[in-house]
Amino acid sequence: MTENILGTIAGILTSISMLPQLIKVLKENNVEDLSALMLIILIIGLSFWVWYGILKNEWPIIISNGFAVIVDVCLLISLWKYKAKYIR
Amino acid sequence: MTENILGTIAGILTSISMLPQLIKVLKENNVEDLSALMLIILIIGLSFWVWYGILKNEWPIIISNGFAVIVDVCLLISLWKYKAKYIR
Repeated sequence: MTENILGTIAGILTSISMLPQLIKVLKENNVEDLSALMLIILIIGLSFWVWYGILKNEWPIIISNGFAVIVDVCLLISLWKYKAKYIR
Repeated sequence: MTENILGTIAGILTSISMLPQLIKVLKENNVEDLSALMLIILIIGLSFWVWYGILKNEWPIIISNGFAVIVDVCLLISLWKYKAKYIR
């Protein structure tokens, strides 16, 4: 049971971690210093974690990484929208 | 066994995802658009994942999140160094 509590805390923290970044981008309309490559690799990696969680039947992994994928896709779309030249 | 391969791929991708960001910051000396709050929450969350991995004895989780903690701490130090005003 301790593992599930720990996994839930870990999942919530890593899930919400990208939200301040997304808010900052949406508010300031400036994404020059953000790495698109970082986001793309992260989204693929997080998707693999979701798959891993499904196979292992570990819901803290599935939910947290699934949520993180959504936030990071939003961040990537924002980046694309505001600074097309940084997609490289 | 499939889970371990998946976990390893997921771990490698999420571990290296922050490297392009770190290289970008070190090269351009510009971190204005990076969110310090994002990094701090992420580091705490990743540390909890390491703890979770130790309790569950799942090495893909321990190694990948441990490595990500190191990269993100470097990123936070860079951010601190170049733009002290953004630590808020």
